[in-house]
Amino acid sequence: MKSSSPSGTWPHPDDLTRLAIAQSIGEELILDESVKNHLIEEYGKRGLKMSDSQFRQAERPSSGTPIPNPNGTAPGLHTAKDNHHVFALPGPKNEFGPMLTGPIKAILDQIHTGKPLHSRTLRVVGISEAIIGEKLSTLMEAENPTVAPYAKTGEVHLRITTSAATTKEADEIINPIADQIRSILGSAIYAEGEESLAAWIIQELTRRGHTIATAESCTGGLLAAELTSIDGSSKVFPAGFVTYSAESKNRELGVDLETLRTFGTVAEPTAIEMAVGARERAQTDFAISITGVAGAAPLVEPPSPKASGLVFVGIASPQGNSVHRLHFRGSREIIRTRAVIAALIRLRDILIVI
Amino acid sequence: MKSSSPSGTWPHPDDLTRLAIAQSIGEELILDESVKNHLIEEYGKRGLKMSDSQFRQAERPSSGTPIPNPNGTAPGLHTAKDNHHVFALPGPKNEFGPMLTGPIKAILDQIHTGKPLHSRTLRVVGISEAIIGEKLSTLMEAENPTVAPYAKTGEVHLRITTSAATTKEADEIINPIADQIRSILGSAIYAEGEESLAAWIIQELTRRGHTIATAESCTGGLLAAELTSIDGSSKVFPAGFVTYSAESKNRELGVDLETLRTFGTVAEPTAIEMAVGARERAQTDFAISITGVAGAAPLVEPPSPKASGLVFVGIASPQGNSVHRLHFRGSREIIRTRAVIAALIRLRDILIVI
Repeated sequence: MKSSSPSGTWPHPDDLTRLAIAQSIGEELILDESVKNHLIEEYGKRGLKMSDSQFRQAERPSSGTPIPNPNGTAPGLHTAKDNHHVFALPGPKNEFGPMLTGPIKAILDQIHTGKPLHSRTLRVVGISEAIIGEKLSTLMEAENPTVAPYAKTGEVHLRITTSAATTKEADEIINPIADQIRSILGSAIYAEGEESLAAWIIQELTRRGHTIATAESCTGGLLAAELTSIDGSSKVFPAGFVTYSAESKNRELGVDLETLRTFGTVAEPTAIEMAVGARERAQTDFAISITGVAGAAPLVEPPSPKASGLVFVGIASPQGNSVHRLHFRGSREIIRTRAVIAALIRLRDILIVI
Repeated sequence: MKSSSPSGTWPHPDDLTRLAIAQSIGEELILDESVKNHLIEEYGKRGLKMSDSQFRQAERPSSGTPIPNPNGTAPGLHTAKDNHHVFALPGPKNEFGPMLTGPIKAILDQIHTGKPLHSRTLRVVGISEAIIGEKLSTLMEAENPTVAPYAKTGEVHLRITTSAATTKEADEIINPIADQIRSILGSAIYAEGEESLAAWIIQELTRRGHTIATAESCTGGLLAAELTSIDGSSKVFPAGFVTYSAESKNRELGVDLETLRTFGTVAEPTAIEMAVGARERAQTDFAISITGVAGAAPLVEPPSPKASGLVFVGIASPQGNSVHRLHFRGSREIIRTRAVIAALIRLRDILIVI
């Protein structure tokens, strides 16, 4: 048997998803004229001509409804029969995700016949899921609202959910529990909802009219990329330095050659000088530096080898400088990701108290 | 009813996954001493004491087998009864992924009683899934080997799969199809298997003894982060610049103030001067620059506003300099990701011909 495209997206000549859905509800595939016109327009904008197989993206079972896709050409599909609903979405994460949390969620909310569900997410850093589970064990056993932890890389999301006719009614159930969780976990809760640690920091720096620079070695630009992932970050982030070699640490950031010789590239004094250098160079209020060993093998450098996972975070601020010694285990990707999160947490700790 | 942790990881006091699996196969939960000792050791290394609930990570149905987790404390679980297999894994992507492609795949291969499956993945950039589907439609209809496309952000993976007793036998079936695909898609296939575009570039530069620097505006460090995600990249990548403000483009990279005034920060001449400046500053053989508008709103700057999604990629090389005008649509994240992929593709095009 011929198999359907495993990613299930529309434009394949061999994609059987639409056909399978149509057949299962006893309908024919038709060409949706509005989708077809939209596709012609989108392809036209990019100076592309559409092939015949690409028009198959516009096909749907006759009773189906196309779901707009803001990040790609292929629309999704929603069909309903006898109170059974089938959704089909393009596979790429960047298209699938926004469609799921946008139009699909809206349709599901509409379908939901009882009282709608209301959720609030508290974002927690610096405490493991296990410890959170212990501290909140009573709350997590409750049935209304439910409190559920979701482990993410470097953080945990706590979702408080209840069923209520109105937002106000939901808030009355959720608020006291959120307050209780705040009193138990304290400043480990850094934000609510969709706000990331980087977003919180950019917002906080913007509010204060402060600026920040980055100086990265082992994270190679990930910290700068995380901060600049936030719209509006250009107001607070003028420049970042990826100083991967010892020479560039000296040349770009003014790290003393004597410091590098005496302590090496992965060391407290080097991390501090990187942060201080970035702050001076970019003329910012704050600077964060990260230097460490993300590779699987230890770094062999004078005066002593540095173990894989050893990371230093330096912070230069108007109130003075600090350095943090950390140790992570795991793959290169994990060590780098956790180093970035750790750096953002340390910066947050400082922004909270000053 | 009390609900289980939705992320399904072990350390929760309220996690019901293990218990549910044990009950469904009619067994008791027992404490696995080897896992328990491993946990004590791991927590000890981090200077942490284990709580009672954390020891529940070491529980398993009596006939179950723990699956090692190289990137976290909680092990996975494999149980088998009457030829039915149940796997349970920790939820975080960084832990789940490596366990799935490592130990779980190995167990599944062992379970597989017929001839094992053999796959080869060809990685394609610069052609849409739809066009690939059209060009390879005959091959995609074949049953042995099967050819299936997987759409990823900015690239498509083509997986050729067959069932064969030995690797040699599989190669005899897969090779002619892979060759046929290569002759159809040509240089759009940039690598086989797990090798990313960044890995290909780092490997190619290493082989030639060449170095590279980056100069980024709208991608804010993502390009540098992508290159340095590859182990061994420090040999070819000494430094990168994130010059987010106009001032830093001038100060760090020597972009002429007159160029910035005349053309703006998002323009061909600026992209070229950024690349040339980074190459000179970092004393590398190559440099790539990216400047563009990743935000949802157009950039208002003299001499003219620049549309959201407009991106310029500059490349400075021993053979001369080039600049590429691109336009992406989608969210900030998508524009940035696609800009990085486009920059890597342009660099690859140059490395192939020189």
